[in-house]
Amino acid sequence: MEKGWFLTIEGGEGAGKTTLIEGVAQALRAQGRSVMMTREPGGIPIAEQIRNVILDKTNTAMDARTEALLYAAARRQHLVEKVHPALARGEVVICDRFVDSSLAYQGYARGLGIEEVWSINQFAIEGSMPNLTIWMDISAEAGLARINSTAGREINRLDLESMAFHEKVREGYRRLMAADPNRIVRVDAEQTPENVLKDVLAIINKRF
Amino acid sequence: MEKGWFLTIEGGEGAGKTTLIEGVAQALRAQGRSVMMTREPGGIPIAEQIRNVILDKTNTAMDARTEALLYAAARRQHLVEKVHPALARGEVVICDRFVDSSLAYQGYARGLGIEEVWSINQFAIEGSMPNLTIWMDISAEAGLARINSTAGREINRLDLESMAFHEKVREGYRRLMAADPNRIVRVDAEQTPENVLKDVLAIINKRF
Repeated sequence: MEKGWFLTIEGGEGAGKTTLIEGVAQALRAQGRSVMMTREPGGIPIAEQIRNVILDKTNTAMDARTEALLYAAARRQHLVEKVHPALARGEVVICDRFVDSSLAYQGYARGLGIEEVWSINQFAIEGSMPNLTIWMDISAEAGLARINSTAGREINRLDLESMAFHEKVREGYRRLMAADPNRIVRVDAEQTPENVLKDVLAIINKRF
Repeated sequence: MEKGWFLTIEGGEGAGKTTLIEGVAQALRAQGRSVMMTREPGGIPIAEQIRNVILDKTNTAMDARTEALLYAAARRQHLVEKVHPALARGEVVICDRFVDSSLAYQGYARGLGIEEVWSINQFAIEGSMPNLTIWMDISAEAGLARINSTAGREINRLDLESMAFHEKVREGYRRLMAADPNRIVRVDAEQTPENVLKDVLAIINKRF
Protein backbone atom coordinates (compact mmCIF):
# COMPACT_ATOMS: atom_id res chain seq x y z
CA MET A 1 0.00 0.00 0.00
CA GLU A 2 2.76 2.40 0.96
CA LYS A 3 5.20 3.27 -1.79
CA GLY A 4 7.78 5.10 0.30
CA TRP A 5 10.65 3.89 2.40
CA PHE A 6 10.85 4.22 6.16
CA LEU A 7 14.25 4.65 7.80
CA THR A 8 14.81 5.20 11.51
CA ILE A 9 18.02 6.25 13.25
CA GLU A 10 18.64 5.03 16.79
CA GLY A 11 21.39 5.29 19.38
CA GLY A 12 22.47 6.82 22.66
CA GLU A 13 23.40 10.42 23.38
CA GLY A 14 26.47 11.71 21.56
CA ALA A 15 26.23 9.10 18.80
CA GLY A 16 25.88 11.78 16.12
CA LYS A 17 22.35 11.06 14.88
CA THR A 18 21.58 14.62 13.76
CA THR A 19 24.72 14.97 11.65
CA LEU A 20 24.15 11.56 10.08
CA ILE A 21 20.51 12.27 9.22
CA GLU A 22 21.44 15.51 7.45
CA GLY A 23 24.13 13.70 5.49
CA VAL A 24 21.85 10.85 4.49
CA ALA A 25 19.06 13.23 3.43
CA GLN A 26 21.46 15.27 1.32
CA ALA A 27 22.90 12.16 -0.38
CA LEU A 28 19.47 10.68 -1.13
CA ARG A 29 18.20 13.98 -2.52
CA ALA A 30 21.26 14.11 -4.75
CA GLN A 31 20.08 10.70 -6.06
CA GLY A 32 16.77 12.36 -6.96
CA ARG A 33 14.70 10.99 -4.06
CA SER A 34 12.13 12.95 -2.05
CA VAL A 35 13.16 12.88 1.59
CA MET A 36 11.27 13.91 4.70
CA MET A 37 13.28 14.26 7.92
CA THR A 38 11.25 14.09 11.10
CA ARG A 39 11.28 13.19 14.79
CA GLU A 40 8.43 12.70 17.25
CA PRO A 41 6.30 14.74 18.00
CA GLY A 42 7.20 16.40 14.70
CA GLY A 43 5.05 19.51 14.86
CA ILE A 44 1.80 17.52 15.08
CA PRO A 45 -0.34 19.54 17.53
CA ILE A 46 -1.89 16.54 19.33
CA ALA A 47 1.52 14.87 19.67
CA GLU A 48 3.04 18.16 20.87
CA GLN A 49 0.32 18.46 23.53
CA ILE A 50 1.07 14.93 24.69
CA ARG A 51 4.81 15.70 24.85
CA ASN A 52 4.05 18.79 26.92
CA VAL A 53 2.34 16.58 29.49
CA ILE A 54 5.38 14.26 29.55
CA LEU A 55 7.88 17.11 29.84
CA ASP A 56 5.90 19.24 32.34
CA LYS A 57 8.37 19.52 35.21
CA THR A 58 5.58 19.91 37.77
CA ASN A 59 4.45 16.36 36.91
CA THR A 60 6.92 14.78 39.31
CA ALA A 61 4.49 11.99 40.21
CA MET A 62 4.33 10.61 36.68
CA ASP A 63 4.46 6.83 36.71
CA ALA A 64 6.85 5.12 34.25
CA ARG A 65 3.97 3.22 32.62
CA THR A 66 1.90 6.39 32.23
CA GLU A 67 4.90 7.91 30.47
CA ALA A 68 5.35 4.89 28.18
CA LEU A 69 1.66 5.04 27.20
CA LEU A 70 1.96 8.76 26.47
CA TYR A 71 5.02 8.20 24.27
CA ALA A 72 3.10 5.50 22.41
CA ALA A 73 0.12 7.86 21.97
CA ALA A 74 2.33 10.66 20.57
CA ARG A 75 4.03 8.11 18.30
CA ARG A 76 0.69 6.94 16.94
CA GLN A 77 -0.48 10.43 16.09
CA HIS A 78 2.82 11.46 14.48
CA LEU A 79 2.78 8.25 12.45
CA VAL A 80 -0.79 8.70 11.21
CA GLU A 81 -0.59 12.42 10.49
CA LYS A 82 2.94 12.79 9.19
CA VAL A 83 4.77 9.53 8.40
CA HIS A 84 2.00 7.58 6.65
CA PRO A 85 1.07 10.45 4.27
CA ALA A 86 4.73 10.94 3.29
CA LEU A 87 5.17 7.21 2.67
CA ALA A 88 1.96 7.22 0.62
CA ARG A 89 3.46 10.00 -1.52
CA GLY A 90 6.43 7.71 -2.13
CA GLU A 91 8.93 9.65 -0.04
CA VAL A 92 11.85 8.38 1.98
CA VAL A 93 11.02 9.16 5.62
CA ILE A 94 14.00 9.47 7.97
CA CYS A 95 12.87 9.50 11.58
CA ASP A 96 15.19 10.43 14.44
CA ARG A 97 14.26 7.76 17.02
CA PHE A 98 11.16 5.56 16.82
CA VAL A 99 9.82 2.48 18.57
CA ASP A 100 13.27 1.05 19.38
CA SER A 101 14.03 4.04 21.61
CA SER A 102 11.03 3.20 23.81
CA LEU A 103 12.09 -0.45 23.88
CA ALA A 104 15.76 0.24 24.69
CA TYR A 105 15.23 3.11 27.17
CA GLN A 106 11.93 2.35 28.92
CA GLY A 107 11.63 -1.35 28.18
CA TYR A 108 15.18 -2.42 28.91
CA ALA A 109 17.19 0.31 30.68
CA ARG A 110 14.34 1.53 32.92
CA GLY A 111 13.19 -2.02 33.53
CA LEU A 112 9.58 -1.98 32.31
CA GLY A 113 10.35 -4.96 30.09
CA ILE A 114 10.93 -5.00 26.33
CA GLU A 115 7.97 -7.33 25.72
CA GLU A 116 5.61 -5.16 27.74
CA VAL A 117 6.60 -1.89 26.10
CA TRP A 118 6.44 -3.65 22.74
CA SER A 119 2.81 -4.63 23.38
CA ILE A 120 1.60 -1.04 23.65
CA ASN A 121 3.77 0.09 20.74
CA GLN A 122 2.42 -2.72 18.60
CA PHE A 123 -1.04 -1.28 19.28
CA ALA A 124 0.27 2.19 18.38
CA ILE A 125 2.02 1.38 15.12
CA GLU A 126 -0.02 -1.58 13.83
CA GLY A 127 2.82 -3.13 11.89
CA SER A 128 4.24 0.12 10.47
CA MET A 129 7.80 -0.94 11.17
CA PRO A 130 10.77 0.76 9.52
CA ASN A 131 12.24 -0.82 6.40
CA LEU A 132 15.62 -0.23 7.97
CA THR A 133 16.87 0.93 11.35
CA ILE A 134 20.41 2.19 11.80
CA TRP A 135 21.71 1.70 15.31
CA MET A 136 24.57 4.16 15.86
CA ASP A 137 26.55 2.31 18.48
CA ILE A 138 28.99 4.23 20.62
CA SER A 139 30.55 3.38 23.99
CA ALA A 140 29.43 5.35 27.02
CA GLU A 141 32.91 6.89 27.34
CA ALA A 142 33.09 8.02 23.74
CA GLY A 143 29.52 9.37 23.70
CA LEU A 144 30.07 11.30 26.90
CA ALA A 145 33.42 12.63 25.73
CA ARG A 146 31.69 14.04 22.64
CA ILE A 147 28.93 15.69 24.66
CA ASN A 148 31.48 17.09 27.11
CA SER A 149 33.81 18.42 24.44
CA THR A 150 30.83 20.31 23.02
CA ALA A 151 29.90 21.63 26.46
CA GLY A 152 33.55 22.26 27.39
CA ARG A 153 33.51 20.42 30.73
CA GLU A 154 34.97 17.40 32.56
CA ILE A 155 33.37 14.13 33.67
CA ASN A 156 31.55 14.33 37.06
CA ARG A 157 29.60 12.00 39.35
CA LEU A 158 26.34 12.41 37.47
CA ASP A 159 28.17 11.51 34.30
CA LEU A 160 29.28 8.23 35.88
CA GLU A 161 25.65 7.40 36.68
CA SER A 162 24.65 8.35 33.20
CA MET A 163 27.44 6.13 31.83
CA ALA A 164 26.00 3.12 33.62
CA PHE A 165 22.59 3.99 32.19
CA HIS A 166 24.06 4.48 28.71
CA GLU A 167 25.54 0.99 28.88
CA LYS A 168 22.14 -0.41 29.79
CA VAL A 169 20.55 1.38 26.84
CA ARG A 170 23.31 -0.04 24.66
CA GLU A 171 22.61 -3.57 25.88
CA GLY A 172 18.93 -2.92 25.12
CA TYR A 173 19.75 -2.03 21.51
CA ARG A 174 21.99 -5.10 21.30
CA ARG A 175 19.09 -7.32 22.28
CA LEU A 176 16.73 -5.62 19.86
CA MET A 177 19.20 -6.16 17.04
CA ALA A 178 19.66 -9.80 18.00
CA ALA A 179 15.88 -10.26 17.81
CA ASP A 180 15.46 -8.49 14.45
CA PRO A 181 18.81 -8.58 12.62
CA ASN A 182 17.31 -8.00 9.17
CA ARG A 183 15.82 -4.68 10.14
CA ILE A 184 18.35 -3.31 12.63
CA VAL A 185 21.88 -2.75 11.42
CA ARG A 186 24.64 -1.65 13.77
CA VAL A 187 27.07 1.05 12.65
CA ASP A 188 30.26 1.90 14.53
CA ALA A 189 29.53 5.48 15.59
CA GLU A 190 33.00 6.01 17.03
CA GLN A 191 34.35 6.52 13.53
CA THR A 192 34.57 9.98 11.96
CA PRO A 193 31.19 11.38 10.80
CA GLU A 194 32.37 10.97 7.19
CA ASN A 195 33.03 7.26 7.64
CA VAL A 196 29.76 6.73 9.51
CA LEU A 197 27.89 8.36 6.63
CA LYS A 198 29.76 6.26 4.08
CA ASP A 199 28.89 3.04 5.95
CA VAL A 200 25.24 4.02 6.28
CA LEU A 201 24.86 5.01 2.62
CA ALA A 202 26.39 1.67 1.60
CA ILE A 203 23.81 -0.15 3.76
CA ILE A 204 20.94 1.93 2.41
CA ASN A 205 21.95 1.58 -1.23
CA LYS A 206 22.18 -2.19 -0.84
CA ARG A 207 18.54 -2.17 0.34
CA PHE A 208 17.11 0.02 -2.42
CA MET B 1 -0.84 -6.90 49.46
CA GLU B 2 -3.88 -4.66 49.12
CA LYS B 3 -6.35 -4.91 51.96
CA GLY B 4 -9.18 -2.94 50.38
CA TRP B 5 -11.92 -3.90 47.99
CA PHE B 6 -12.24 -2.59 44.46
CA LEU B 7 -15.70 -2.20 42.93
CA THR B 8 -16.40 -0.75 39.49
CA ILE B 9 -19.74 0.29 38.05
CA GLU B 10 -20.27 0.00 34.30
CA GLY B 11 -23.09 0.58 31.84
CA GLY B 12 -24.43 2.77 29.05
CA GLU B 13 -25.83 6.28 29.31
CA GLY B 14 -28.99 6.64 31.37
CA ALA B 15 -28.36 3.42 33.33
CA GLY B 16 -28.33 5.31 36.63
CA LYS B 17 -24.72 4.74 37.70
CA THR B 18 -24.40 7.94 39.74
CA THR B 19 -27.51 7.28 41.82
CA LEU B 20 -26.47 3.69 42.41
CA ILE B 21 -22.94 4.62 43.50
CA GLU B 22 -24.25 7.09 46.06
CA GLY B 23 -26.66 4.50 47.42
CA VAL B 24 -23.97 1.82 47.68
CA ALA B 25 -21.52 4.17 49.38
CA GLN B 26 -24.13 5.22 51.92
CA ALA B 27 -25.10 1.62 52.69
CA LEU B 28 -21.48 0.46 53.08
CA ARG B 29 -20.65 3.41 55.31
CA ALA B 30 -23.65 2.53 57.46
CA GLN B 31 -22.01 -0.93 57.82
CA GLY B 32 -18.92 0.87 59.17
CA ARG B 33 -16.75 0.61 56.07
CA SER B 34 -14.51 3.36 54.71
CA VAL B 35 -15.59 4.12 51.15
CA MET B 36 -13.93 6.20 48.47
CA MET B 37 -16.02 7.12 45.43
CA THR B 38 -14.04 8.08 42.34
CA ARG B 39 -14.03 8.21 38.56
CA GLU B 40 -11.19 8.79 36.09
CA PRO B 41 -9.37 11.21 35.95
CA GLY B 42 -10.42 11.79 39.57
CA GLY B 43 -8.70 15.09 40.27
CA ILE B 44 -5.22 13.68 39.59
CA PRO B 45 -3.41 16.56 37.81
CA ILE B 46 -1.51 14.37 35.30
CA ALA B 47 -4.67 12.42 34.46
CA GLU B 48 -6.64 15.69 34.16
CA GLN B 49 -4.05 17.05 31.73
CA ILE B 50 -4.34 13.89 29.65
CA ARG B 51 -8.13 14.16 29.64
CA ASN B 52 -7.84 17.76 28.47
CA VAL B 53 -5.89 16.57 25.43
CA ILE B 54 -8.60 13.97 24.70
CA LEU B 55 -11.47 16.43 25.14
CA ASP B 56 -9.84 19.40 23.35
CA LYS B 57 -12.37 20.11 20.60
CA THR B 58 -9.72 21.52 18.30
CA ASN B 59 -8.10 18.06 18.20
CA THR B 60 -10.38 16.88 15.40
CA ALA B 61 -7.63 14.77 13.84
CA MET B 62 -7.21 12.54 16.87
CA ASP B 63 -6.84 8.92 15.83
CA ALA B 64 -8.93 6.32 17.70
CA ARG B 65 -5.79 4.45 18.81
CA THR B 66 -4.16 7.64 20.08
CA GLU B 67 -7.30 8.22 22.12
CA ALA B 68 -7.30 4.67 23.51
CA LEU B 69 -3.65 5.04 24.57
CA LEU B 70 -4.43 8.35 26.26
CA TYR B 71 -7.34 6.82 28.18
CA ALA B 72 -5.05 4.00 29.29
CA ALA B 73 -2.41 6.53 30.40
CA ALA B 74 -4.94 8.54 32.45
CA ARG B 75 -6.25 5.27 33.93
CA ARG B 76 -2.75 4.24 34.97
CA GLN B 77 -2.03 7.50 36.75
CA HIS B 78 -5.42 7.60 38.52
CA LEU B 79 -4.91 3.99 39.62
CA VAL B 80 -1.41 4.57 41.00
CA GLU B 81 -2.08 7.90 42.68
CA LYS B 82 -5.61 7.43 43.97
CA VAL B 83 -6.96 3.87 43.83
CA HIS B 84 -3.93 1.92 45.05
CA PRO B 85 -3.34 4.14 48.12
CA ALA B 86 -7.01 3.85 49.13
CA LEU B 87 -6.93 0.07 48.73
CA ALA B 88 -3.70 -0.04 50.75
CA ARG B 89 -5.53 1.85 53.53
CA GLY B 90 -8.16 -0.91 53.45
CA GLU B 91 -10.93 1.18 51.91
CA VAL B 92 -13.70 0.12 49.58
CA VAL B 93 -13.06 1.94 46.30
CA ILE B 94 -16.08 2.47 44.08
CA CYS B 95 -15.04 3.62 40.62
CA ASP B 96 -17.53 4.98 38.08
CA ARG B 97 -16.30 3.22 34.88
CA PHE B 98 -12.95 1.49 34.55
CA VAL B 99 -11.22 -0.80 32.06
CA ASP B 100 -14.47 -2.40 30.82
CA SER B 101 -15.66 0.97 29.47
CA SER B 102 -12.62 1.14 27.17
CA LEU B 103 -13.19 -2.46 26.11
CA ALA B 104 -16.93 -2.07 25.44
CA TYR B 105 -16.84 1.40 23.86
CA GLN B 106 -13.52 1.58 22.02
CA GLY B 107 -12.69 -2.10 21.73
CA TYR B 108 -16.10 -3.40 20.67
CA ALA B 109 -18.48 -0.59 19.67
CA ARG B 110 -15.86 1.56 17.89
CA GLY B 111 -14.26 -1.53 16.38
CA LEU B 112 -10.66 -1.35 17.62
CA GLY B 113 -10.98 -4.88 18.95
CA ILE B 114 -11.50 -6.00 22.55
CA GLU B 115 -8.23 -7.99 22.58
CA GLU B 116 -6.22 -5.08 21.24
CA VAL B 117 -7.61 -2.53 23.69
CA TRP B 118 -7.17 -5.09 26.44
CA SER B 119 -3.44 -5.37 25.65
CA ILE B 120 -2.73 -1.70 26.37
CA ASN B 121 -4.97 -1.69 29.43
CA GLN B 122 -3.21 -4.77 30.77
CA PHE B 123 0.02 -2.76 30.55
CA ALA B 124 -1.72 0.15 32.33
CA ILE B 125 -3.31 -1.74 35.23
CA GLU B 126 -0.86 -4.65 35.71
CA GLY B 127 -3.44 -7.01 37.11
CA SER B 128 -5.24 -4.48 39.32
CA MET B 129 -8.64 -5.78 38.30
CA PRO B 130 -11.78 -4.99 40.30
CA ASN B 131 -12.94 -7.53 42.84
CA LEU B 132 -16.41 -6.99 41.44
CA THR B 133 -17.87 -5.14 38.46
CA ILE B 134 -21.54 -4.30 38.31
CA TRP B 135 -22.86 -3.99 34.77
CA MET B 136 -26.00 -1.86 34.86
CA ASP B 137 -27.78 -3.18 31.82
CA ILE B 138 -30.49 -1.09 30.21
CA SER B 139 -31.98 -1.20 26.71
CA ALA B 140 -31.19 1.65 24.35
CA GLU B 141 -34.84 2.72 24.38
CA ALA B 142 -35.11 2.82 28.15
CA GLY B 143 -31.75 4.56 28.61
CA LEU B 144 -32.60 7.20 26.04
CA ALA B 145 -36.08 7.71 27.47
CA ARG B 146 -34.48 8.46 30.85
CA ILE B 147 -32.00 10.92 29.39
CA ASN B 148 -34.73 12.61 27.38
CA SER B 149 -37.17 12.86 30.25
CA THR B 150 -34.40 14.66 32.19
CA ALA B 151 -33.69 16.96 29.24
CA GLY B 152 -37.41 17.37 28.47
CA ARG B 153 -37.19 16.51 24.75
CA GLU B 154 -38.31 13.93 22.16
CA ILE B 155 -36.34 11.29 20.22
CA ASN B 156 -34.64 12.62 17.04
CA ARG B 157 -32.45 11.24 14.22
CA LEU B 158 -29.24 11.57 16.20
CA ASP B 159 -30.89 9.61 19.00
CA LEU B 160 -31.59 6.76 16.57
CA GLU B 161 -27.90 6.67 15.64
CA SER B 162 -26.96 6.76 19.26
CA MET B 163 -29.42 3.93 19.95
CA ALA B 164 -27.63 1.72 17.43
CA PHE B 165 -24.34 2.61 19.12
CA HIS B 166 -25.78 1.97 22.58
CA GLU B 167 -26.81 -1.51 21.44
CA LYS B 168 -23.27 -2.17 20.26
CA VAL B 169 -21.88 -1.05 23.61
CA ARG B 170 -24.38 -3.35 25.28
CA GLU B 171 -23.25 -6.28 23.16
CA GLY B 172 -19.67 -5.38 24.14
CA TYR B 173 -20.54 -5.61 27.84
CA ARG B 174 -22.36 -8.90 27.17
CA ARG B 175 -19.19 -10.38 25.69
CA LEU B 176 -17.02 -9.09 28.51
CA MET B 177 -19.35 -10.69 31.04
CA ALA B 178 -19.33 -13.97 29.13
CA ALA B 179 -15.53 -13.95 29.25
CA ASP B 180 -15.29 -13.12 32.96
CA PRO B 181 -18.56 -14.14 34.66
CA ASN B 182 -17.08 -14.30 38.16
CA ARG B 183 -16.07 -10.69 38.14
CA ILE B 184 -18.80 -9.05 36.06
CA VAL B 185 -22.36 -9.30 37.33
CA ARG B 186 -25.29 -7.98 35.31
CA VAL B 187 -28.02 -6.04 37.06
CA ASP B 188 -31.32 -5.13 35.43
CA ALA B 189 -31.09 -1.32 35.39
CA GLU B 190 -34.64 -0.88 34.07
CA GLN B 191 -35.98 -1.52 37.57
CA THR B 192 -36.61 1.31 40.02
CA PRO B 193 -33.45 2.79 41.56
CA GLU B 194 -34.47 1.27 44.90
CA ASN B 195 -34.65 -2.24 43.46
CA VAL B 196 -31.37 -1.81 41.57
CA LEU B 197 -29.68 -0.78 44.83
CA LYS B 198 -31.23 -3.74 46.67
CA ASP B 199 -29.96 -6.17 44.02
CA VAL B 200 -26.47 -4.67 44.04
CA LEU B 201 -26.16 -4.66 47.83
CA ALA B 202 -27.21 -8.31 47.89
CA ILE B 203 -24.46 -9.13 45.36
CA ILE B 204 -21.85 -7.13 47.28
CA ASN B 205 -22.73 -8.57 50.67
CA LYS B 206 -22.48 -12.09 49.28
CA ARG B 207 -18.91 -11.26 48.20
CA PHE B 208 -17.71 -9.75 51.47
